[in-house]
Amino acid sequence: MKSIQIELRQLNKNLHKMIATENPILYSAAKQLFNARGKRIRPTIIFLISKLINENEIISTEQKRLAEITEIIHTASLVHDDIIDNCDTRRGTETVHTAFNNKIAVLAGDFLFAQSSWYLANLNSLNVVKTISKIITDFAEGEVKQGMTAFDYQISIDSYIEKSFYKTASLIACSCKATTILNQSSQNIQNDFYLYGKHLGLAFQIIDDILDLTGLSKDLGKPAGSDFINGNLTAPLIFTLNKKPKLKKMIDQEFQFKEHINEAINTIKNTNSIQKAKDIAEEHIQLAIHIIKSKHSYTNNRELLLVTHYLLNRIN
Amino acid sequence: MKSIQIELRQLNKNLHKMIATENPILYSAAKQLFNARGKRIRPTIIFLISKLINENEIISTEQKRLAEITEIIHTASLVHDDIIDNCDTRRGTETVHTAFNNKIAVLAGDFLFAQSSWYLANLNSLNVVKTISKIITDFAEGEVKQGMTAFDYQISIDSYIEKSFYKTASLIACSCKATTILNQSSQNIQNDFYLYGKHLGLAFQIIDDILDLTGLSKDLGKPAGSDFINGNLTAPLIFTLNKKPKLKKMIDQEFQFKEHINEAINTIKNTNSIQKAKDIAEEHIQLAIHIIKSKHSYTNNRELLLVTHYLLNRIN
Repeated sequence: MKSIQIELRQLNKNLHKMIATENPILYSAAKQLFNARGKRIRPTIIFLISKLINENEIISTEQKRLAEITEIIHTASLVHDDIIDNCDTRRGTETVHTAFNNKIAVLAGDFLFAQSSWYLANLNSLNVVKTISKIITDFAEGEVKQGMTAFDYQISIDSYIEKSFYKTASLIACSCKATTILNQSSQNIQNDFYLYGKHLGLAFQIIDDILDLTGLSKDLGKPAGSDFINGNLTAPLIFTLNKKPKLKKMIDQEFQFKEHINEAINTIKNTNSIQKAKDIAEEHIQLAIHIIKSKHSYTNNRELLLVTHYLLNRIN
Repeated sequence: MKSIQIELRQLNKNLHKMIATENPILYSAAKQLFNARGKRIRPTIIFLISKLINENEIISTEQKRLAEITEIIHTASLVHDDIIDNCDTRRGTETVHTAFNNKIAVLAGDFLFAQSSWYLANLNSLNVVKTISKIITDFAEGEVKQGMTAFDYQISIDSYIEKSFYKTASLIACSCKATTILNQSSQNIQNDFYLYGKHLGLAFQIIDDILDLTGLSKDLGKPAGSDFINGNLTAPLIFTLNKKPKLKKMIDQEFQFKEHINEAINTIKNTNSIQKAKDIAEEHIQLAIHIIKSKHSYTNNRELLLVTHYLLNRIN
């Protein structure tokens, strides 16, 4: 997205400053995280919404800071997420990972959450603090929901969607809302952008889950089928279960046989389940687009619509 | 402390309400933590300071909520601390990561931190949010400092004190300060109570570390010498190192031989090191008392002084 290239570059620089700490280990753990080429999707959306709703398409200092905070929270959640998923993997394969890494990971996550709280408070809007602090409780609830339904093939598509809301969509919805709060937008606009973010976030998670099956390992940054190994049963699998009862057995055995992962992926690919999952993602994208297009007379909505479409097109 | 018995009872009730979540696992993990008989020292201090500085010795609703938030943050830090230290029992009961697993423990901690942020924002004082969010960054820095100096017998008493500040005293100092902010106290009073909390917190940590050597397992709620097993070299050990070089060898071997723990404790007890550590704690207690006694004309300071003394007397 050309129009926000300068802002994204500045964001990367600021992220490094914001996580500065005297502590070399904590710093290098945090730095490594931000160096890894994240897609910066959350900041991109915040920037584009800011340009859409602010006068003269300007992104305010507070909105830029919000974008940074959102990226820090997202990164913190990834760190803790990794510990959680490593634990699951360890259960099946007895991977030895040293206590030291776990230790630093717990702390680096705590440190990032805490830094984000501090910067958040310094935005000087209690309303924004309230909106954003909701994200972390939702994240924790979402991960626990995921833990509770791990390897449970009775999971419904509704609880899959609910889980995805807590895990992913809440963060995007709340940061979209916070962007409008910082612009002193009306309650109506705040709610609309909350909903926009919610639908976008849900589509984003569904697409991510499809990519876990159809993507190449090197693009994903993790082996294909990682979700299944961790017991995370996603939309394409849920849609296939009734047609292919053999999958239930593999789930019961917690995908401990490596060949079962590929077999499950192939079984899913031979049905229309991936298309069905795509359709749900598409529906949410359409709902998100509808809000931007019809409810407000934003003439400059082209870029936000482009990004919204882009998220869907990742799988095409 | 009779005068705040009702408030403490109400605090226990409220804590259960505040951590309510639809999620049964998260809830039972959190409940287990709050059921375990904590000493409620942090809330006690907040209540007593409130009574000292407020008119008519009333504790305001916001100050009561602050006490609850402080206890939640403290508990959240304990959960993550236990993962880091691989500690199996806490407050006499199983820790969350033993009773459940690492996964739930990471999330339960995140959930509690997030809940506390949310309640904090709803105190409607940005100044308090800023003061309290400092605690969690300090906590993470303190734990990493501890990790970096684990089993390092070159640790100085100064870095031991610095570590204790980040780990323990910062929380008490910041919550004492926040109590005064909620009373719209002057900057001077805010700073004084910050210092009071800081000295009290340092004394508290030093005494806790002494008790880890001299206490009985059942009183401690964890085995004696736990600090050493985790590589946490505390004041009494640091003071003994130069006199008894044999200890250095045990540290190098990371106390992997169980008999070394008892031998180290006995070696320390045969010197004046415990007394020297006590002396430092006593100094900090005196500094804390000095602030309450001399700098302000609080006539009703008896109870706060009693608690301050009590913390020291735990080891006598």
